Amino acid sequence: MERVFDIELKELRDKLIYMSQIGEKMIDISLRGLVERDKELAKQVFECEQEINKLHIEVDELCIRLLALRQPIAADLRLITAAMKINSELERIGDQSVNISENTAIYLEHPPLKPLIDIPRMVDITKEMVIDSITAFVNEDVGLARSVLKRDDDVDNLNYQIFRELLTYMLSDATAIHRALCLILISQNIERIADHATNICEDVVFMTLGKDIRHHMEKQ
Amino acid sequence: MERVFDIELKELRDKLIYMSQIGEKMIDISLRGLVERDKELAKQVFECEQEINKLHIEVDELCIRLLALRQPIAADLRLITAAMKINSELERIGDQSVNISENTAIYLEHPPLKPLIDIPRMVDITKEMVIDSITAFVNEDVGLARSVLKRDDDVDNLNYQIFRELLTYMLSDATAIHRALCLILISQNIERIADHATNICEDVVFMTLGKDIRHHMEKQ
Repeated sequence: MERVFDIELKELRDKLIYMSQIGEKMIDISLRGLVERDKELAKQVFECEQEINKLHIEVDELCIRLLALRQPIAADLRLITAAMKINSELERIGDQSVNISENTAIYLEHPPLKPLIDIPRMVDITKEMVIDSITAFVNEDVGLARSVLKRDDDVDNLNYQIFRELLTYMLSDATAIHRALCLILISQNIERIADHATNICEDVVFMTLGKDIRHHMEKQ
Repeated sequence: MERVFDIELKELRDKLIYMSQIGEKMIDISLRGLVERDKELAKQVFECEQEINKLHIEVDELCIRLLALRQPIAADLRLITAAMKINSELERIGDQSVNISENTAIYLEHPPLKPLIDIPRMVDITKEMVIDSITAFVNEDVGLARSVLKRDDDVDNLNYQIFRELLTYMLSDATAIHRALCLILISQNIERIADHATNICEDVVFMTLGKDIRHHMEKQ
């Protein structure tokens, strides 16, 4: 027979999955706003933010309730504390998507800077990282979590390349400066989303193995 | 007679105070590196990062241990969950100071862009916010926590002004582009430190009043 506590833990996982789906949608829509030059799409991102913020509070309350009522130990305790942290990371993924939309709004005041360079590619990798980080959490899949950690380097490298490329544009054409600057900020927003996915995966490894891999205390 | 648990909670508070002092030192040194054009100072910031990362893991372990062994409820439970979150914020304040030092290193490859504009002022306000956020946590001082939340708007405004001013430099002088860009990134790093202090204060209010003020659910 299933414990009441197991049903509650399932509720907790389901809420985090739902939050991550909203986060994924926000990343998608904010990128579409940039690619399709559609500033109206930002509204949908702001609506999603309301939803993710509401869930953020609900999940925190649920975690505190479970800690108080169920007095969990060992694996259950690690799961709930991991959930509290993952909750914050997901909420901040939402914040960064809002930042992308806000920076896009300024970018769209200018004529397009022809290519969006590697930004869509960077978004693809980052979105996969977010999805996989939550799958790793739900399935307690350390292998998947580690693969997300590795991909963070790819995103960092892309961010650096994008920065160099946009700097070159700025130096060769003064009319490109403001637009390129917006894209640099957007690229940084994406890089931060990848960081949040990375943080989630570090929590997953700790939760699953009871081992702290943060701060490069272990070679991945 | 003092409970063993009270002594453990004091140890937890003391560790967070110590982390915040390291964070404050990192902010100080990273700014000095910029103002005094001394790239050697970055080494001290990197050393502090090792220390803050070590504490980050220790505090997390202590919190999990206290949750498992003491099975706290009510105020004690809220204190420990707040401490877990504050721990992450402090560690990220360290990360941002490292980012300031890294961006400073690139900035220092160029001749100085005459004024550092309002960056030192922004750092002063932000550093005070960090100090006050931990004081608010230790003393459970909601009034002080709220005053930090208000100051975050000042930092956001300064960040925006600095951005506009540096953009103007870039537009009028192509040789200023790369340098100004470094300062924009540094200004953003500082703004993120202020955000972390804000997050800490929201946790303090929740811990103290059991009331969630995040996501503007309450007028401050």
